[in-house]
Parts: sequence; structure tokens; C-alpha cells
Amino acid sequence: MEIEIIAVGGYEEVGRNMTAVRCGKEVVIFDMGLRLDQLMVHEDAEVDTMHSLDLIQIKAIPDDTVLQSVPGTVKAIVCSHGHLDHIGAIPKLAHRYKAPIIATPYATELIRQQISGEKKFRVENTLVPLKAGQRHTVSRNLVLEFVRTQHSIIDTVTPVLHTPHGAIVYACDFKLDRTPVIGAAPDFARFRQLGKEGVLAVIVECPYIQHPGRCPSERIAGNLVRDVITSYEDDPNAIIVSAFSSHISRVKTIAECAEAIGRKPVLLGRSMEKYGLTAERMKFVSLPKTMSVFGNRRVIDRMLRRMMKEGKEKFLPIVTGHQGEPGALLTRLAHGDTPYQLAKGDKVLFSANVIPSPLNHANRAEIEMLLERAGARIFTELHVSGHAYREDHFEFMHLLQPQHIIPAHGDLTMASKYVQFAGELGFTLNDSVHPMTNGRRLRLN
Amino acid sequence: MEIEIIAVGGYEEVGRNMTAVRCGKEVVIFDMGLRLDQLMVHEDAEVDTMHSLDLIQIKAIPDDTVLQSVPGTVKAIVCSHGHLDHIGAIPKLAHRYKAPIIATPYATELIRQQISGEKKFRVENTLVPLKAGQRHTVSRNLVLEFVRTQHSIIDTVTPVLHTPHGAIVYACDFKLDRTPVIGAAPDFARFRQLGKEGVLAVIVECPYIQHPGRCPSERIAGNLVRDVITSYEDDPNAIIVSAFSSHISRVKTIAECAEAIGRKPVLLGRSMEKYGLTAERMKFVSLPKTMSVFGNRRVIDRMLRRMMKEGKEKFLPIVTGHQGEPGALLTRLAHGDTPYQLAKGDKVLFSANVIPSPLNHANRAEIEMLLERAGARIFTELHVSGHAYREDHFEFMHLLQPQHIIPAHGDLTMASKYVQFAGELGFTLNDSVHPMTNGRRLRLN
Amino acid sequence: MEIEIIAVGGYEEVGRNMTAVRCGKEVVIFDMGLRLDQLMVHEDAEVDTMHSLDLIQIKAIPDDTVLQSVPGTVKAIVCSHGHLDHIGAIPKLAHRYKAPIIATPYATELIRQQISGEKKFRVENTLVPLKAGQRHTVSRNLVLEFVRTQHSIIDTVTPVLHTPHGAIVYACDFKLDRTPVIGAAPDFARFRQLGKEGVLAVIVECPYIQHPGRCPSERIAGNLVRDVITSYEDDPNAIIVSAFSSHISRVKTIAECAEAIGRKPVLLGRSMEKYGLTAERMKFVSLPKTMSVFGNRRVIDRMLRRMMKEGKEKFLPIVTGHQGEPGALLTRLAHGDTPYQLAKGDKVLFSANVIPSPLNHANRAEIEMLLERAGARIFTELHVSGHAYREDHFEFMHLLQPQHIIPAHGDLTMASKYVQFAGELGFTLNDSVHPMTNGRRLRLN
Amino acid sequence: MEIEIIAVGGYEEVGRNMTAVRCGKEVVIFDMGLRLDQLMVHEDAEVDTMHSLDLIQIKAIPDDTVLQSVPGTVKAIVCSHGHLDHIGAIPKLAHRYKAPIIATPYATELIRQQISGEKKFRVENTLVPLKAGQRHTVSRNLVLEFVRTQHSIIDTVTPVLHTPHGAIVYACDFKLDRTPVIGAAPDFARFRQLGKEGVLAVIVECPYIQHPGRCPSERIAGNLVRDVITSYEDDPNAIIVSAFSSHISRVKTIAECAEAIGRKPVLLGRSMEKYGLTAERMKFVSLPKTMSVFGNRRVIDRMLRRMMKEGKEKFLPIVTGHQGEPGALLTRLAHGDTPYQLAKGDKVLFSANVIPSPLNHANRAEIEMLLERAGARIFTELHVSGHAYREDHFEFMHLLQPQHIIPAHGDLTMASKYVQFAGELGFTLNDSVHPMTNGRRLRLN
Repeated sequence: MEIEIIAVGGYEEVGRNMTAVRCGKEVVIFDMGLRLDQLMVHEDAEVDTMHSLDLIQIKAIPDDTVLQSVPGTVKAIVCSHGHLDHIGAIPKLAHRYKAPIIATPYATELIRQQISGEKKFRVENTLVPLKAGQRHTVSRNLVLEFVRTQHSIIDTVTPVLHTPHGAIVYACDFKLDRTPVIGAAPDFARFRQLGKEGVLAVIVECPYIQHPGRCPSERIAGNLVRDVITSYEDDPNAIIVSAFSSHISRVKTIAECAEAIGRKPVLLGRSMEKYGLTAERMKFVSLPKTMSVFGNRRVIDRMLRRMMKEGKEKFLPIVTGHQGEPGALLTRLAHGDTPYQLAKGDKVLFSANVIPSPLNHANRAEIEMLLERAGARIFTELHVSGHAYREDHFEFMHLLQPQHIIPAHGDLTMASKYVQFAGELGFTLNDSVHPMTNGRRLRLN
Repeated sequence: MEIEIIAVGGYEEVGRNMTAVRCGKEVVIFDMGLRLDQLMVHEDAEVDTMHSLDLIQIKAIPDDTVLQSVPGTVKAIVCSHGHLDHIGAIPKLAHRYKAPIIATPYATELIRQQISGEKKFRVENTLVPLKAGQRHTVSRNLVLEFVRTQHSIIDTVTPVLHTPHGAIVYACDFKLDRTPVIGAAPDFARFRQLGKEGVLAVIVECPYIQHPGRCPSERIAGNLVRDVITSYEDDPNAIIVSAFSSHISRVKTIAECAEAIGRKPVLLGRSMEKYGLTAERMKFVSLPKTMSVFGNRRVIDRMLRRMMKEGKEKFLPIVTGHQGEPGALLTRLAHGDTPYQLAKGDKVLFSANVIPSPLNHANRAEIEMLLERAGARIFTELHVSGHAYREDHFEFMHLLQPQHIIPAHGDLTMASKYVQFAGELGFTLNDSVHPMTNGRRLRLN
Repeated sequence: MEIEIIAVGGYEEVGRNMTAVRCGKEVVIFDMGLRLDQLMVHEDAEVDTMHSLDLIQIKAIPDDTVLQSVPGTVKAIVCSHGHLDHIGAIPKLAHRYKAPIIATPYATELIRQQISGEKKFRVENTLVPLKAGQRHTVSRNLVLEFVRTQHSIIDTVTPVLHTPHGAIVYACDFKLDRTPVIGAAPDFARFRQLGKEGVLAVIVECPYIQHPGRCPSERIAGNLVRDVITSYEDDPNAIIVSAFSSHISRVKTIAECAEAIGRKPVLLGRSMEKYGLTAERMKFVSLPKTMSVFGNRRVIDRMLRRMMKEGKEKFLPIVTGHQGEPGALLTRLAHGDTPYQLAKGDKVLFSANVIPSPLNHANRAEIEMLLERAGARIFTELHVSGHAYREDHFEFMHLLQPQHIIPAHGDLTMASKYVQFAGELGFTLNDSVHPMTNGRRLRLN
Repeated sequence: MEIEIIAVGGYEEVGRNMTAVRCGKEVVIFDMGLRLDQLMVHEDAEVDTMHSLDLIQIKAIPDDTVLQSVPGTVKAIVCSHGHLDHIGAIPKLAHRYKAPIIATPYATELIRQQISGEKKFRVENTLVPLKAGQRHTVSRNLVLEFVRTQHSIIDTVTPVLHTPHGAIVYACDFKLDRTPVIGAAPDFARFRQLGKEGVLAVIVECPYIQHPGRCPSERIAGNLVRDVITSYEDDPNAIIVSAFSSHISRVKTIAECAEAIGRKPVLLGRSMEKYGLTAERMKFVSLPKTMSVFGNRRVIDRMLRRMMKEGKEKFLPIVTGHQGEPGALLTRLAHGDTPYQLAKGDKVLFSANVIPSPLNHANRAEIEMLLERAGARIFTELHVSGHAYREDHFEFMHLLQPQHIIPAHGDLTMASKYVQFAGELGFTLNDSVHPMTNGRRLRLN
């Protein structure tokens, strides 16, 4: 049986991830992601109503037309977690394939919401939630397994496709966090066992391979946030925290810190509402009882007015906008476009990194400047990454002992760094470690 | 009574700190520091036997000749802690003044060792150890108080000189760590009270004012180190950690982590021995019973040979050399100049930052390259700073409410950043915040 | 007679320059500039109709309210050249003073156009054009002299105010170009003579003091542009060049290169039209006969349509938009918002640097990305600065031998670098070299 | 006939270049280079007496053991120019092959000198000088042609190997300079013709592909140097210029500028003597009659003493040491280790870039600091690159129209950038553009 890897998207950029694996006549697709930064350049782009081909044209979603020449039938679409660069193109591409979408329960729920918001296409693929530790029989030859791992969103797994020639591990977006804030540590024992059973190939995220050492645990980020917030126990000024809305562990920590200093945590912003409430409803997290959530702009502004009236020191708003995105709440706060007036000594905490791009840097610099002009005190980088660093990859490859490595989720330069790293482990360019570009196909046997 | 601040050293560089305060006819000197990087350029310089004037010439020690024209008598030399950029010039300069040297007990002991190593000058000033929380009467008009604080060396204080016109606070090298590993948090209550009693001036370190937010606690660094070390509990390879030898809290953490994974901690290097044993003898720290310490090169090499024989996995060497200093143990290890051979998979942890300078970057890059070529895996930045960041300064100034701020311990560019920061608090250039250069004098009333 | 320097604007930022000099009871103002980047943050700001106080509030124009407490009458407003950061606030501030505006002829004409576009205030100050080399009697005690210099706009001078206590030189925006493209080299002989007559103070631009060596001549930029353009003599693709519209020397070079390879130069954009036609009408430059100029958007688009029809290879458009400014022509071209379609192999030359700011970097990155996606080939940095570098300042201070130096046109950090430089020449902080902040006043005698 | 490219050295680093081309049973080797930075780490390494295998071990020379498994006989060793990273390993490797060394006349002479200095091996390969524009018959099937090009050393060519399957172009180290200072522009007509005849593959340097636009002409560098030197016509201070000793065009310009301001040019340093005198003797350049050359340390110091005595303003020393190399003349001058004392106002011009590496940055920073402390004024970056930039490569590939591109002379990251560039031209990863690592082999048909 021929095994082939097809690099569909995410091999010349960060975002719009999509990889297909063909085993004989059967194809399994991993991820269908969206690249948001491409959309931001075209300011008037309305994704909901756009056609796939136009989105492919501006490189916002993977160009899956390459699959037309691949001799096989798509049997499953598999998503490792619920971030948009992994599930965001499903509403635009999934309907082209008669195949179920298999994802973790939380990701499945987010995919469902994505699909329901789609206005151009009708997506009717079956949604199959699969939990970490479980298996799903794709076909007579293929079994899918979800191995527990950690990432910056809850309920993330490392999908493993068992083929007659060995396992194919799709290790895209993971972190070997031994002391996570929500959930258990990655299933090291299972990874080691897979290595013993035989791993044909690992498709692995490469953008963070240059970071030396290990990625710090989410517990570290939690302590960084906690130390700052609790140091202002007696402060009469506002404390506002911005974090990734999908980062439920972080949101939980922040909300608990708010309680610890006697402030009511308030989750503000549509995406905060979406990720937070979904997680709570599905029992992934238990957020403080005192916490309230507001997603709609009108009610947000009403709540902000109430805070001004009752006293800023009684609340701790958790908001969107750490990238300075136009329209996000923190951006509006910085521009003075809300009923909530910033004052000298107010604290603004960024519990998120700046996703590196000139636009993000500019947006962020602008709101920091406006916040400072309003007298706010700024705290940045109260954050750790959700991605494996170099020595995490070293351990991971040591556990899996793969025959082949395919660096993914980054451009060729990032993949090259992974090749150099793999070289230290004995892998050889184009023999056992294979950098690829979008649209390229690789026969493994 | 005229109050005057004289910027002697450390106002155009980082290092060789020295500030004098004249109150009427009495002068108190704060710190007499050494600037090591200047010495490294002149490779054949032997500090022990060099004359003060030659060291002044190459800008390695403060140019205290400015004090000849200051109308007053030096009544005390005060050191806030035991780092070389604060005490290192004492053997070269202190004998010129008939005045006691007042420092914390640990710093006093280190000063005593400095003086005993001096070969050019005979330094006979009285050494007066003063504990945090204690006071010392300098003269009828002047009382010195040591207020407890935190830094990257144990037993650090913020000296306060009480004058008839208010307190003068010498806040050079401090960190507002609320959860330190050794000792208690800074004495916030006393700082607040000083603010109420009236602070005439704060002489304050400025180099870190550009760092946003608060400096992370030493507890964070401890966890970073701990997470990495304990993740290799079952690893058969070497684990070698390099840290600042004077950073007793860090050394303690590392040694405890070694024990936790069943390895014997071994402190190697002359300065490791000096700082570690002195701290233990003085009961500042209790290091693991299993720990051994070797300072002499011959015994170090014997110990390294023993490790090779008994098994690397039984030991955890804590070594000097994180800056890639020629001659330091890690540098020798990297060059293969010891009986200890590095092998594929050995772990080398840098629990220290690179002190920014082109020479340090080059030295460090070189040993990292050699370590990697030997197959070692590198972990960097398992470290936090020992200096107050921007919002720590914000809190500090809020507590002290000083009339005047004198940025110190950095060049004019760094001081300018402090002026900009002070401007946000309402201070005005040359009226209430005073950037200075070496040799300049400032009348405060 | 008391001499006082009042730092009004441009001492905590780059832009909104304004300095006042008081000699006894008479005040001379140098420059009234606009800071454009502050306006860009407030996207809906319409400068034409805004009130001074609102523009002061957002730090877009100098806060001249400090002058209310200065005991003296404004006798003249002097502008060294026609850039907006020197003349842009005149429509908002000049009417508050009963004083003539004295500027070089070209700058005077640009000021006239500025004033005529103002919609909020009525500015009726007399405009007095003064040529390089000429003098103007301000009062019995004060004589103004314009000394010829070079900069990135034609007709730039170094104003010198002769007072009973010596000359005050306002050396803001200059370049010691010995081989300029338009006009003659700076009047070195006169500067040397001023040094001999006695210079009390130099108010000098400081932002470029960190650049080592000398600023390259405009001739170098000319050759860089020429080499690229002429290398495409036989190329059938478009060649589009973007440059600062006020940089007449550069525009002239580009237009001549167009002719040299047989293409018609076409100046496109409102500011291109304004600066170019004004310069030509005033006989400062003779542009190629074949050149045409279009400022109005409708006619620009008509011309672009014509180029598409007649063949891109027949024209060389010189356009605005090198900073990726929204609405500028190059930005529109990049977004495909014009009748002119970019194609594979088209050349786009940036004969301008990116003015460093996060917003400019983002805007520029975005259009470069779009241009590249359209297949265009990009050429950057075909440019040299218009500002004196470190060794130019060294020569300049050597010529003038001033008693005092006041670094201007930059924030305190930049001024600090100038202090460090001045230190190498023997000047001392706060004695003979005086960093200032907005609103501060300095008595010189 | 099988055509194979073997990446021997220079594919994971910059330096130690070596590529072999196998055509059936015949092999042609291009370059045998030395990587100097690897030697500098091992300070006690004496290259002259070291064995090849030890030099291979420390990655200082190419690991040509890979050629043992290549089925063919080496017929020729070809060098494109005389830089050490192209010819420096010849004394260590060439004797292993029974094949002539074919190089340009100037490179041949430098190779001869290299070989004569070798102390370990006896190298007896025939040296065959071949001029630009000439051809050499390697075998019945293979003809070698040297096409004129430009680089930062005189007499550089682009070797072309004509095979039955088309030409193989070895475009390593070249610059499309249309206005060079010595020699004629590259032979564009011949490159275009080669493209029409059919180019099978181009092996092309990749490290500069990220530089946008075109590489500036050597004429630009000449003007930069000239403008600075001639601006000090009346200066009584020293003017010292450091440049790459092999950069004969630059040395010529500097020497002519010295004459222009009435100073005697003096070439100082062993490598200055070697490259300069060889070039003059072979009539590649005519240096000013007034110029003198001193290579030996003793005579250099004598000459320096004479300059001090007769007056610094009478001479213009052209010296080695721009990288701050220990032992080089400028380094000695900076340390005060010569009879020539630097004084306030002396000018030191760096007509060279810093070759990027931490060690070079540190060495250079150190001597700049020492020069400045001695009062010298520093001029940097009076230099342009000798390598093709992105749009030069665009033109070059347009002329040659190759079937295959092999990026060389850089690590995989640099090669990846070239792949991305080639992608814009329609080349596809591993189909028509082939990044390689040391030891890898590529079948082209």
C-alpha cells in the first residue's frame, strides 16, 4: 500500500493548515485552517459570504485543488483542536468531501458553531466527537487514535493514524506541559509505546524549533499573572486584563486571582463569551461563581457604565484586544470609545504575546501609546507559549523514534531549522526529514 | 545645612558605582564598585597589584579625585550589598578616607575577603556590619538606617541616610520580590513610613526602567529551573547547571532539585566556593547535606574524574562560566580541557542571563557552539532579573514620595529614560529629577 | 541683557518643532511645526478645521502656552525651511503673535499655501522672504542672518540670530553636503567666521548623532537611483519610483533618468504637484521638458489609463506612497484600486527610507506584500539621509566653537546621546550642553 | 550520461566551499575552500602543519571523503577566484586527486603561494591559468569556459562546464556590477547566449538573496570613501583606512584619494603586501607611484615611527584589522602596541563591513572602543558588497533560463530563501530547485 503525504496548506506560511495522508486509495485530511492575517489586509473582506476560490486566491484558506489529482477518496477530516488555523476553513472546504469530521468534543462544538455561521456554503458533514485516549475505525485499513496532549486551548490531542505500514503521527500544535492548569499532562507512556510499535512518520509543527530549552509550563504563566494581580490587593485603580479568549486555563487563573483580591471577574467580548461559556457548559472548567460574561456590544457598554458607577476597584474586566485589533474592547477602551474612562494609575495587563507581524506590532504599539497617554500602567508578556520548544521536540522524537519527519505549520525557512535540528538526531535531508511546500506530495515507501 | 550629591562613578556606565552625599561638612560615601568589563579588554591587567590611578585611567574604578574639591570630611563608606560593582574598588580607594565601612554582615565578610586579597594597598578602615532593620549613628546630624530589600544576592538592604533636611534613600540594586526564596520580602511598611516622614532625595538605579511591568519573583526562576531538572529524573545523561556564584537563592534551588532527582549536587569553581561557603557558614542558607564544594582547580579536576568514573547520572555539577569567561569551568568543559567528557544528550542549563556586551555575546556563542558540537542539549534563560522594573519603580516612588530623584547606575541615556518615567509621576527635568554625569555635583537646597 | 532659550516643542518627540529665544524683552520664535504621526492615530482628525488647543492636547502641535509666562514680545517667527515639522503649525499658532514670518523664498511660498488652506483661523502675519546669505534687522538689538546650508528640501538655511551677547545659531535640519544635486554646498567660510566672531549658543538637531561618520552626499543617492533605472533600459515592464514629494533634487534625478532610458517622467500625486510645480515656477529647478504633472485624483487615473493603453514601457511614474500611507497613489496601486494593473516583472523603486514608527513599518510591509503578490520586483533604500551625522556635527561644532549647545528636535534620549558626543568635545552637562524638555526654560547668562 | 551534483562543502555554513559535478565517469570539482572562523575558535590551531582529517573534524575544510563513493575520476579542480573560502583548502585536499587546478591567472598565482606555504602535504597538481573568455577542454565530453564577471577581488569568473546535456554554470561569488572600478562589466551577452544554448543547472550562491534590489556598484563605495577622505584635505590629523587586503579596486581608490589630498599612501600588513604586489606585478592594477608597501612587522613599525616623526598629515596608512583581528595592524594601533600614537581628532575609516559573527562583532566593538578612547573619530561602512542581490539574481536567472537551480554557499536556511525566490520564477522544490546539505548527492537526469 502506497503511503503519501500531501502538503496542502501551512507549508509556506503560519496558518491555513491542512495536510492529507493517502494510504492506498484512502485519504485522511488533517485540519482545514484559516489564515487571519491575510484577511486583515483586505479590510472589506467578509469571510462569511465569500467563496472558497476567492479565499484561496488571497491565500486565506488552503488550496485544496491539489487533492483533485490525488488518486483516492477522502475518508475522514480530522482536527486536533479548536483553533481557527486548524478548523477555520471547514465551512469553506469540508462540503467538497463526503467524509465525517472527527475532532475532540470541545473542538467539535466550536466547529459546529463555525458551520452555523457560514452563509455561503451548506456544510453537512457528520461531526464525530472523539475523546483523548479513544480510537475511531476509519476503514478496514485505517484506525484513528487521539492521544492526550497539552496546548493553549483545552481538549487538544495528537491524532495518530494507524496504517498497515506503521503509525502516522500528526503532532501539530502541542506542548509537553507536565504541570498544566487544566487537564492532565500529555500521555508520555502512550507516545513511548507508539515509538515501540513503530512510527512511520511524524508531521510536526516547526515554528518554535529555534527556541532553546523547554517551553515553560502554563503554571509559570499563571504565577506571573497571579503575582502581579495580587500585588495590587489594596489598589483603588482599575485592573484590566487582556488574554486570548480561547485560552481557558489562563482565563480561569485570571478570574481566580480577581476573586483572591476581592474583585468580581467580568468576561467581556463576543469571543470571550463563546469560548468561555462553551467550555463551562461542557464541564471542562469551573469558573468562579462571581464571574459574569457579556458578549454583546450593547450589554458590554452597559456593564462598563455600571463599573464606572459602582467603582472600578470592585471589578476585574477580562477583555479582548491584546493585539490592538480594531473594534476589540481593549482597543475601544484605549481610544476612549466606551463609557469606561481610563484614569491615572489604572493597570492594564497583557496576558498574551504579540503575534509577530508588522500590523500587529503597529496596532499594539498604538493602543499602548493611547493607554499610557490616559495614564494607565502597562504590564506585558504575562504569558508563556503553547508550543513545544527545541528540547521538547528532542524528547518527543526520542519517544516516537519515527522513520520520517515532515516539518509543518511554517514556511520553508522554519522547516529548514527543523531539518538542522533533525540532523542532530541523525535524520537526513530528503531521506528521512522532508521539508515541503504547499501542493507538494511525498511518497514514503 | 547644605546638602549635596556628588556623582563619582556609575553615572556614565554600568559598574564602578560610587556616590557621595555631603551634609554640611560631613560626607557619606555610598559604594565603591569595580567595572569588570573594562579589565577584560586589557587582558594582562592584574588588578591585585595595580595602582588606583591606573585603574581610574582605564575607567575600571570610580574617579574619586573629584572629592578633593568637596568641602567636607568623609564620615562613612556604606555598601548596600556584596556585589563587586558595589564593593570591588574598596581595596583600591577606601584607604584614602579615615572612615568606617558599614555594610550588611554578608557584604562585610565579602569586603573583608576582598581586602585580604589586595596586594598594592593596605586597607585598615574599620568594618562595621549592620543588619537590615538596624540603625547606626554616623554623627550628631546623621543617622544611617538599613531597610530590608531583595536582590540577586542575599543580605541586601536599601541604605537610608537621615539628615536634618529629610531622608536620603540610596536605592541602588533592589527588587520588590514579594515571594523570595531566601529571606523576607522588602520592608514595604518602613518604606511607606519613610515617605510619610519625608524623603529629600532618592538615588535610584535606572538601567531597568525600560522593562515594562514588574520584575518576576525569584520563585518563578526557581520553578523554571525545577521544571527542567525534574523532567530529566530518569535521564542517564549529565545535567550541568551554570549560575551566578553569588546568587545563593538560585544555587540553593538547583541543589535541592538535584537531590529531588537523586543526584548529588556538586558546587565547582573558586567563586562558587567563596560565596556558597561564606553564606552557609554565616547561616544565611542551609544547603543540602549531600552537597560538596570544590574551589581549587586541581581538586575540581579530580572530582570531575570521579564523576566520569562513578557515572554522570549520579551528580549534578553547579558550575561557573555562563558568560563563557575564559578559564571558567564551563568554558573549560566546552573546550574539552577537563577530565570530564561531554557526550550526546548531556544537558547544560544556563540559569543566568548573558550580561549584554559584545564580548560576552561572543564568549557565550562560542561555548554554546562547542557544547552543541559535543552533542550537549542547551537550556537558556532559566533566570529572572534581580532588579526592579518600571512598575516596581512606580510603586517604590509612590511609597517614598521623594522631593528629588537622582537616577544612578547607568549612563545618561538610561537616566533619560528614568527622567521620562519620572515625568509621568510629575517630576520635572533639573527641578526635581536630576540626571548626572561622573564628577558632577548637585546642590539640593 | 538676559538671554533665554525656551523649549516649546520638539524636545520630547520628533516633529512639532518650536523654540523661542528671548533677548531682554524681545522674543524670536524658530519654527512652528506639525507632528503628523499623532494625527494618524486619530483617524478622523481633520486638521484644517481643528482648534489649536485640541491639536496641542493630542500633541500634534507645540504647546506654546508656555510663552504666556515669558516676559517679552515676539518680534519674529523664523523658519529654516519648508518641511511640515517646521512650518505646519503656523496656520494654528502664528495668528497669536503680532510678528512677521521670516523664511526662505521657497519656504515662504509653502507657508503661504499652508495658510490659504487653513479653515479655522485667520492668519494675517506678514510674510518676509529672506534669501540665504541675506540679513534682516529684527530690532535695534537683533539681526537675523540666513546662512546657506543643505537638506532634503531645496532652499534650506541655518538661521543665525545676532545678539549683543553673541550669535545664536538655529541649526535644525541641515546636512554638510559638499556635492549637492541642487544649489551650492553649505557656506563653510561663513560658519568658520561666525565661530571667530563668537557664538553664544547653537540649538542643534540631535536625532542623527548616533550615526557614525558623515552623511553620504545626495550625489550618492542620485547614483544609486540612476544605476538601477538605467540597468533596465531595455526592459518592457513598468518602472515606478516613489520618493518624498518635497525632495526636489531627487525628483529631478529620477526624471532625468527616465529621459535617459527613453521614458516620459510623470509626476503623480497632489503633494508631488505642489512641491514640484512651486519649485519650478520659482526657478529653483529645471525639470525635463518631457515631464508632466498630475495632482488631481481624477486626472491621475485618466493618465494611468493612458499609460496602460500606450504601454507602460513609455512612462516612468514618480509617485507618492513610499510609507504605505492610506490613500497615497502607490498604496492604491498596490491594492489594485486604480486603472493601472501591475504585472509580473514590473519594477517598484523606493527612493526613500521608512520613517521609523510601528505604523509606517506596518503600512509599508503591507504594500510591499501586495506589490510582490502582484509580481512586482521591489527596490528599497535608494536613498540617503538629509541630516548631518556624527562627524558632520564634529566639523560643525569645530567651525562654530559655541559656548553653549542645546540639543533639539528629538526626545531626551536622543539629546543624551548628543550630550555624550559633546562631552568628547569638552562640553559639560548643564554647564555648556543643555538637554531640555518641552516647556523648560534656560537662562544663558 | 548521468549528471550528478555532489554537495561537498559550503552547504551548511558560509565558507569551505566545494562542489563536485559528475558527468558519467568523469568528475569536475569546483572550489576547495577554507572556513576561517572555525579556526579562530581553536586558538592554537596551526593550519600549515595540520592534517586534512583534523581540519575536516573541526569543520574548517570540506569533508571530501564523500567523493570516495562517487563512481568517477576527478578530471579537473576549478576555482572561480582567489578568495580563501574558494582556494584555501587546496593545500590540504588537492593532492588526493590526479587532476590539474584550473583558475584565473590571479587566482592561480594566489594558489601557487598557498601551496608553497603548506608544510604538511606536498601538492603537485598542475596549475592551469585560464583567462575570462577562454575555454579549456577537460575531456572528450567536457569543456570548461570562464565567463567574465565581477566580485570583490579582481579576475573573478563564472566557470561554465559544457556537458552533453547542457551547460552547468557555477555562479559562486559574483556581482552584476555595470560600472566596476577595475576590469569590465560581466559578460551579459555571453550569459544570455548560454541561456539560449541551454543551461542544465546553475549552482549559485544564496546568502544575499534576501537583500532587496540590486547590489550597489563598486563605484558607489569609491565615492563614499572619496567624499570622506577629500573632506579632510586641510586636516592636520591622521587618516587611517582599513579595507579588505584582497579588494584591489578599493585599495586603488583609497590610494588615489590619498594622492588627491597630498598624502603618501602606505600599504601596511602582510596580506596587503601579498594581494597588492601580486596584482601590480601581474598588471591588473596600476597603483600610485608615491605608494609604498610594507608587509613585515619590523619594517611596518619602522615606517610607523617615521610617520610619527615626519608628520601624520603627510601619510595615509592603508591597514589590515577592520574585523578587529588579534595581531592585525589596526588592532595593534588601537591597543597602543606600535610606535604610532593615536591622538584626538585622528580619523579611522572602515572601508569594510563587519563579517557577521559574534566574535567579529566583539573584536570590532573592542577596537572601536579603544580607538574612541584614544580620541579617534570613526567612519564605518564605507563599503558595498561584492555579491549579487535579489534583483541581480532575478536578472541572472532570466538570462540563463536554467532547468535546475542548486543554491550553494550557505546553510539550509539561506538556501530556503533562495527556494522561495526561485518559486517566484516558477521553480518547484526538489523538482527544479534543490536545496542540499553537505554530503548529499543529486541526480539531474
